[in-house]
Amino acid sequence: MKTENERANPIGVFDSGVGGLTVVREIMRQLPGEKIIYFGDTARVPYGSKSKETITKYSRQIIRFLKTKNVKAIVIACNTASAYALEDIKNEIDIPIMGVIEPGARAAAMTTANKRIGIIGTEATIASGIYSEFIKKILTDAKVAGKACPLFVPLVEEGYTDDPVTTEIASRYLKDLKQENIDTLILGCTHYPLLRKTIADIMGSGVSLVNPAYETATQLREMLMKEGLMAEEKLDEESGKYEIFVSDTTKKFEDFARTILPSDFDSIRKINIEEY
Amino acid sequence: MKTENERANPIGVFDSGVGGLTVVREIMRQLPGEKIIYFGDTARVPYGSKSKETITKYSRQIIRFLKTKNVKAIVIACNTASAYALEDIKNEIDIPIMGVIEPGARAAAMTTANKRIGIIGTEATIASGIYSEFIKKILTDAKVAGKACPLFVPLVEEGYTDDPVTTEIASRYLKDLKQENIDTLILGCTHYPLLRKTIADIMGSGVSLVNPAYETATQLREMLMKEGLMAEEKLDEESGKYEIFVSDTTKKFEDFARTILPSDFDSIRKINIEEY
Repeated sequence: MKTENERANPIGVFDSGVGGLTVVREIMRQLPGEKIIYFGDTARVPYGSKSKETITKYSRQIIRFLKTKNVKAIVIACNTASAYALEDIKNEIDIPIMGVIEPGARAAAMTTANKRIGIIGTEATIASGIYSEFIKKILTDAKVAGKACPLFVPLVEEGYTDDPVTTEIASRYLKDLKQENIDTLILGCTHYPLLRKTIADIMGSGVSLVNPAYETATQLREMLMKEGLMAEEKLDEESGKYEIFVSDTTKKFEDFARTILPSDFDSIRKINIEEY
Repeated sequence: MKTENERANPIGVFDSGVGGLTVVREIMRQLPGEKIIYFGDTARVPYGSKSKETITKYSRQIIRFLKTKNVKAIVIACNTASAYALEDIKNEIDIPIMGVIEPGARAAAMTTANKRIGIIGTEATIASGIYSEFIKKILTDAKVAGKACPLFVPLVEEGYTDDPVTTEIASRYLKDLKQENIDTLILGCTHYPLLRKTIADIMGSGVSLVNPAYETATQLREMLMKEGLMAEEKLDEESGKYEIFVSDTTKKFEDFARTILPSDFDSIRKINIEEY
């Protein structure tokens, strides 16, 4: 068991932009006693089309920033950064760190009956093949098929979440996966749960959609318990419990944050991430 | 007239990503004697949804990098950076610098008959109102209407340049502009000329489409002449005439560069732009 001070320290969560707030929302629900420091890399968003080297460099900078805030653990709430950077970084830091891929893979492995699982995500996440790796550690004979859906993020950001154009594009992206006879589909990008209805309609009722955010919060709880790092559950609502930092200030981010988060947070602060 | 050495120095051109290569292509055609150093900020692309402060910081870093290559003049081949950063930066550097907005505005002002001009571009370019400012310096009684088209860049990057989905989205974006009775439409983002056919079909034959790239190369020639900086026209084809640098290496960038540029270039080199 760590000291009370350590246990009272915040959890650091980061993403390339706003999407990771869906994971924060889940952590707020499942771990109401925890303080959270969130960082959204809005000056360099998106990550999904960039290289492993660049994503790893950005992730290291963000972790250095979060550590200046005395975080006791870190959640990479971005599929692309989890896919490309987590493995290297995990060996470099002295506090517990986790991503969204392993929880998503575990949830899918627990959900599937026919062992045929689909994954949709950014180009980088799909190219990494990492969901398949983690799934096969649990279900060695699983058949896994992936498909990159690069237009989903811009469509969500344009507000076309329930729109015939999005349905048409989703139908194209999901066509091959439909033929794979999958019974489980991982929404492998934090923006995609906002397209859940469209995707569910296309895939049909025989396919369960898995959102890694829920399972991530559950595994975070397990990790904190194991490390003796859980905060007191009875922490009162207080100013400063949830802090949000970004690398660029945009109206869109603030609107999205206020829409998605159930609890209030202090004003969003901008920092120069290149300095870290 | 500057020294022969100075005149033989390259022109620096930059953009957030690949789009500025359409401007490079035009410079290659109109100024075949010039060497070019191109920088594409592929690690931080796109710029169109980011703040003025961030875009200006990125532009300053890129200019510092280009100056290490002894460029004799700089072209900001990005509408967003031209809109947000050029005015501040122009007062800070000791070599000639120009963007794509003023050339685009001039071309539109020369094209329109009814003095009603439309502009499409990124959210940042449209929010800046700068095209309107420049047009009204030439045509004080012009009526100018702008519309941000944030999905156009991702659609082009997905290869949906001639596609019913793109036609549907373009119809929505252009609906209001069609009602403004414009006779001239500026393609205010370097990706948009790749959607020229779709946009032309929607706007109809009564509307002329202006691509600032052509006029930018023409104004670059004027600027070099005025400053006594034109290279000798008879420069032989040689290795190293065209050099391309990026902040992140991706296959997509290289493919696009080889497709769009009429002349060959040495391998694309990656640099750490945050160091500048």
